[in-house]
Amino acid sequence: MANIRDIAKMAGVSVTTVSRVINEHPYVSEKKRKAVLQVMEEVDYQVNRTAVSLSQGRAHLIGVVVPFAKHPFFGLLIEGIAKQAVENHYHFVLIQTNYEKSREQEALDMLKHKQIDGLIICSHIMDLTEIEPYQSYGTIVVCENAEANQQVESVYVDHYQSFTDALTYLYQKGYRQLGYCIGRESGSNSYFRHRAYQDFLKQHPQHEFVFTENYYFEDGQKIIDQITQSTHKPDALLVTSDVVAAGIFTACQNANIDIPGDIALVGFDNQPMTKMMGITTFEIPIVTMGERLFLHVLGIVNEPHEKLSVTLIERNTV
Amino acid sequence: MANIRDIAKMAGVSVTTVSRVINEHPYVSEKKRKAVLQVMEEVDYQVNRTAVSLSQGRAHLIGVVVPFAKHPFFGLLIEGIAKQAVENHYHFVLIQTNYEKSREQEALDMLKHKQIDGLIICSHIMDLTEIEPYQSYGTIVVCENAEANQQVESVYVDHYQSFTDALTYLYQKGYRQLGYCIGRESGSNSYFRHRAYQDFLKQHPQHEFVFTENYYFEDGQKIIDQITQSTHKPDALLVTSDVVAAGIFTACQNANIDIPGDIALVGFDNQPMTKMMGITTFEIPIVTMGERLFLHVLGIVNEPHEKLSVTLIERNTV
Repeated sequence: MANIRDIAKMAGVSVTTVSRVINEHPYVSEKKRKAVLQVMEEVDYQVNRTAVSLSQGRAHLIGVVVPFAKHPFFGLLIEGIAKQAVENHYHFVLIQTNYEKSREQEALDMLKHKQIDGLIICSHIMDLTEIEPYQSYGTIVVCENAEANQQVESVYVDHYQSFTDALTYLYQKGYRQLGYCIGRESGSNSYFRHRAYQDFLKQHPQHEFVFTENYYFEDGQKIIDQITQSTHKPDALLVTSDVVAAGIFTACQNANIDIPGDIALVGFDNQPMTKMMGITTFEIPIVTMGERLFLHVLGIVNEPHEKLSVTLIERNTV
Repeated sequence: MANIRDIAKMAGVSVTTVSRVINEHPYVSEKKRKAVLQVMEEVDYQVNRTAVSLSQGRAHLIGVVVPFAKHPFFGLLIEGIAKQAVENHYHFVLIQTNYEKSREQEALDMLKHKQIDGLIICSHIMDLTEIEPYQSYGTIVVCENAEANQQVESVYVDHYQSFTDALTYLYQKGYRQLGYCIGRESGSNSYFRHRAYQDFLKQHPQHEFVFTENYYFEDGQKIIDQITQSTHKPDALLVTSDVVAAGIFTACQNANIDIPGDIALVGFDNQPMTKMMGITTFEIPIVTMGERLFLHVLGIVNEPHEKLSVTLIERNTV
């Protein structure tokens, strides 16, 4: 195969010029650029982009850490990330962790070893203090309130506020036994939600109803089974993921439990299926969040921490 | 920062030995390896993995082309791909195309430019004959019947057979106005399904009912609206995606259309939500398909074309 020297000779230009054309350097005359490209075309010269990245010190790749790619929340985040990746001529490596620490470490090591230029961490199990030091190797953006933190950037929703708003809304509608369903117990977002719930219960004492480890549609059945079997029952449920809310809705239909007569239901996200099911929900702009995460990691956004707002969409389940 | 020469000096070994340690070359004594690693640790030497990849001629990255990451079918495929990526110490670049030809071309160019070692194309708009030539730069695996093709590998479901089976099943159950709902009209999988439908109608003449451009839950409403407004109505529907089937199920509930009394419903995939809704479906092993795609692209599988089987799961919608 022809090398860079052969091409320079054939095009009648210097090796430096060929190198500049390959690296899309601006200081090359249009005439020389065309001559080089023509020869490259003639000899079918393939640029090794890994070599080009190396010479530029950039991989043009961003790492994206998600616990599960198949979950609709992360699917929509990836949708937003992909949108901005295309617009900015970048690609991204998707790192699915299943909340295993070793896989999160792998992503951080990729940043350290310059395989990626920056890292978006959509959710994590490692402590933020363990993640922070890697910021020195490239921009890290997380999807939670990291305002108190000077090291990593963040795009987030104020879960304490939105949970408080949702609980107040249900209380004003007359519900007095409020419960909530969430994914995992750990993590910053879960922490703020639980604190909002506890602070609310201090002011409005009632039995505590917390259902954890709910991620998917089918988990709705599990929640309704638990409620059916227990003596104390909530009269309203906040559900941190719309797909789980849709699962609860379907499980209630199957068991002839009336919504909102027997139990009221409020979701989060505003996933399309909640519209058809008539589920009241707090809309989180997930795709926008994905887009903003990408713009942050590229350094296009100035402020390090960005809060997105949440909107109540009232339908028929409260 | 210390370079490879400094490390060699400090560890009292040759530069070649340091290079071998970095590249995980087997012919290094354990003693020398430890000495090098210790010095690298001391001086906090960061291996530039892009440089290592270059010297090895491999990126240790696989490209994965999907039209939409947020669609549950592709979400489950990615789940399987991610599983095998972890097990084989590989990473993958997710390329979302929205069925735009230029983005598929970008993925092929990444293979050509050695940014990725292989390419999994889950669905595409380019003609397979345009994709084939890129096989010379690395393994390409597609997710459709490519048996007739010597260039690319494939992991697929026999959609002609499974559609024929589904139509025959509905016919045997007494339905005589069979329709089907699908995503896009083009593409190899759609072609085989449509041919199966047409061949079936030749033997069992009836009005033709084909609903195209249905991808998501909310598209179920669109289909039911179309049927409600038309004179000729199908008495049974094959739906190529379970999420759309679930949307049809919900739209029918809202409109008091009885399933299967007014219209029977058969989905494909066996997504978890169909279980709770009691939707009869043909199970496609999507996660397994993702895993197999990855093993193919790594060259771990011997036969170039692999067919996965589909299983009927009878519930309450037929």
